[in-house]
Amino acid sequence: MLIVKKFGGTSVANKERILNVAKRCIEDYQKGNQVVVVLSAMGKQTDVLLDMARDINPKASKRELDMLLTTGEQTSVSLMAMAMDSLGVSAISLNAFQVAMHTTSVYGNSRLKRIDTERIKHELEDKKIVIVTGFQGINQYDDYTTLGRGGSDTTAVALAAALHADACEIYTDVDGVYTADPRMVKNAKKLDEITYDEMLDLATLGAGVLHNRSVEMAKKYGVSLVVRSSLNTSEGTVVKEEVKMEKMLVSGVAADRNVARISVVGLQDTPGVAFKLFNHLANHNINVDIILQSIGREGTKDISFTVTEDAVDEAVAIIKRHSEGSLKCQSVDVERNVAKVSIVGAGMMSNPGVAAKMFEALYGVQVNIKMIATSEIRVTVLIDDKSVEVATNAVHERFALGL
Amino acid sequence: MLIVKKFGGTSVANKERILNVAKRCIEDYQKGNQVVVVLSAMGKQTDVLLDMARDINPKASKRELDMLLTTGEQTSVSLMAMAMDSLGVSAISLNAFQVAMHTTSVYGNSRLKRIDTERIKHELEDKKIVIVTGFQGINQYDDYTTLGRGGSDTTAVALAAALHADACEIYTDVDGVYTADPRMVKNAKKLDEITYDEMLDLATLGAGVLHNRSVEMAKKYGVSLVVRSSLNTSEGTVVKEEVKMEKMLVSGVAADRNVARISVVGLQDTPGVAFKLFNHLANHNINVDIILQSIGREGTKDISFTVTEDAVDEAVAIIKRHSEGSLKCQSVDVERNVAKVSIVGAGMMSNPGVAAKMFEALYGVQVNIKMIATSEIRVTVLIDDKSVEVATNAVHERFALGL
Repeated sequence: MLIVKKFGGTSVANKERILNVAKRCIEDYQKGNQVVVVLSAMGKQTDVLLDMARDINPKASKRELDMLLTTGEQTSVSLMAMAMDSLGVSAISLNAFQVAMHTTSVYGNSRLKRIDTERIKHELEDKKIVIVTGFQGINQYDDYTTLGRGGSDTTAVALAAALHADACEIYTDVDGVYTADPRMVKNAKKLDEITYDEMLDLATLGAGVLHNRSVEMAKKYGVSLVVRSSLNTSEGTVVKEEVKMEKMLVSGVAADRNVARISVVGLQDTPGVAFKLFNHLANHNINVDIILQSIGREGTKDISFTVTEDAVDEAVAIIKRHSEGSLKCQSVDVERNVAKVSIVGAGMMSNPGVAAKMFEALYGVQVNIKMIATSEIRVTVLIDDKSVEVATNAVHERFALGL
Repeated sequence: MLIVKKFGGTSVANKERILNVAKRCIEDYQKGNQVVVVLSAMGKQTDVLLDMARDINPKASKRELDMLLTTGEQTSVSLMAMAMDSLGVSAISLNAFQVAMHTTSVYGNSRLKRIDTERIKHELEDKKIVIVTGFQGINQYDDYTTLGRGGSDTTAVALAAALHADACEIYTDVDGVYTADPRMVKNAKKLDEITYDEMLDLATLGAGVLHNRSVEMAKKYGVSLVVRSSLNTSEGTVVKEEVKMEKMLVSGVAADRNVARISVVGLQDTPGVAFKLFNHLANHNINVDIILQSIGREGTKDISFTVTEDAVDEAVAIIKRHSEGSLKCQSVDVERNVAKVSIVGAGMMSNPGVAAKMFEALYGVQVNIKMIATSEIRVTVLIDDKSVEVATNAVHERFALGL
């Protein structure tokens, strides 16, 4: 069996944890499996590097930031190879150049295009455990790129797909996927199984367990994932196409505090304005989530939308740059103290009353809804940041998820 | 003019120093020059990484050590590019993969074979300052290699040769090359010029200013070097083929404490024994310096030689592995508390009394000589480590180098 195992930064934060991960991988190897390990940078190393960069140049180019950040995973994979060697198993570390992990040209938020598997296969045939740097790639200029926060999950899934792996295990600091964040909701329950689509909505909405692109890719290539803890041996949650058990109406509640609302007020009410606005943002790789358009005063219109907090400043700057020209408007307002709460469930499609039930629960605890967005399998509301915990618990209870 | 400038770890140890180096490079750039900068890892980063490795696996493979160590320069070059950008000059950092810095396959102590200059030339034509990782290369397996301690000097000289640079400046924490270590000899004098050969002997012998391979390479390709301080703007020392000024009898005194003596006692007195001994060591890339062979008891012979301290354990292990077979001997002894003191000077060739003058000086301060080695332009003695300072001062004074 060929197994791809991914461990996050917390799992390799120090010598003891690195040795612990090494032992877990060796267990699988000694059962006769081929093992490919994908690692993130150690602990908070990525943040440490970002702080160093900001200290020298707050507006450092993304190209150079990626050059800097990729040292993080290279450090963790080489130390892991040394740890496995010390335990008597031959291992080799490989970075994005050595694997040939081709991505799009975008720095800081690149997408994987193609992975050469030759070197990895060669090393596996040589009876080695192969340890690959997560998160990083190279583009057509032979420059380092990174896949965005949490990108190591995507590396693992892409490797599993390219190598036709029999299993892809994502190790985190939680036991699996829960009906809500266990730190926020006391009786949150672990799910045994969840579909790609549900997981995708949960990932996008901030459940924080899996990087959303990794789930998209797993769905696309039919890679079934297991999310489990690196700290214990409990079973974890399987993410796959079809869940055998009876579909629950709602699988979980997700909260996301890393969000801000931008309101562009007094735009001209002419065709193409929304296109221009979001096209400018897309050109700078800024992902927009909930969008609300409303009629403004005197033949104008207002457009509000949410972005992640780290993208706010850039988004506002872009809009202001165009506000003299194609995006004439009266003002650009920013609200940072907001959060998203969402319910996700494959069973929602055929149950029209679900959204109303959620709103009722929020009304019951006096939480005001600022924006609403729905898809076939989710309902998201934007609320005040300070109400997140109350809202999440109320919704979790209303759908009896803890039972 | 195309200038290659190399800065060591001390010169880029923190934000302030990085900005200081950036400014110095920008000065040259703004005079219309093309500038290529070669950097070592920041401060003691290489040692920090080595400690991390040793903590996890004291016998870590050299392949994985190189994978780990190369993150050091990648960090410093990306931060330098950010620093230059912040000062308004476009800069780009490149690592060994991006430059294509081809080396031999040996890990930990590799030699440069070929440098592709395409990418660098392209970036220079694009009006960028190009910042290259020193010390590192890639071998035919696409694995990282390192050039050994101080290898960044070699990277700089090799780049200067490959790019046909007009100047190659090596910035260190000293003003230039001195007649002796100024920390040890108070009236040591800075030399304006020195020949490659003299510098080579000084580098090999532990003057610690330039990596010896860099001088070999500079000599081979006729690259004239300037050694100068990154902390002030004084002129430094030029290293070149011919020194115009009248050749001094002795240019300087060098001391090297990083040395140990190994004595292989009671070897069989048959042809080929010395060859076998040093061939085994060469196969493991262990450099041997002073060699002394003497007649032992009962038809045996003893061979003593010196190696750097970090190579002692490996060297002894290799000899002991073969001591049952081709290298039958009675014992292998190690003496660590020894040091080398050398005098170097192109003028020595035609002055036979120089060695005697040195021995007289040592006798005058009661320093016992354990081994002697001479070449056309140097005399080296092995003495007790604790006598190094006394010996160096006595020799420096005897040749009136401070005047």
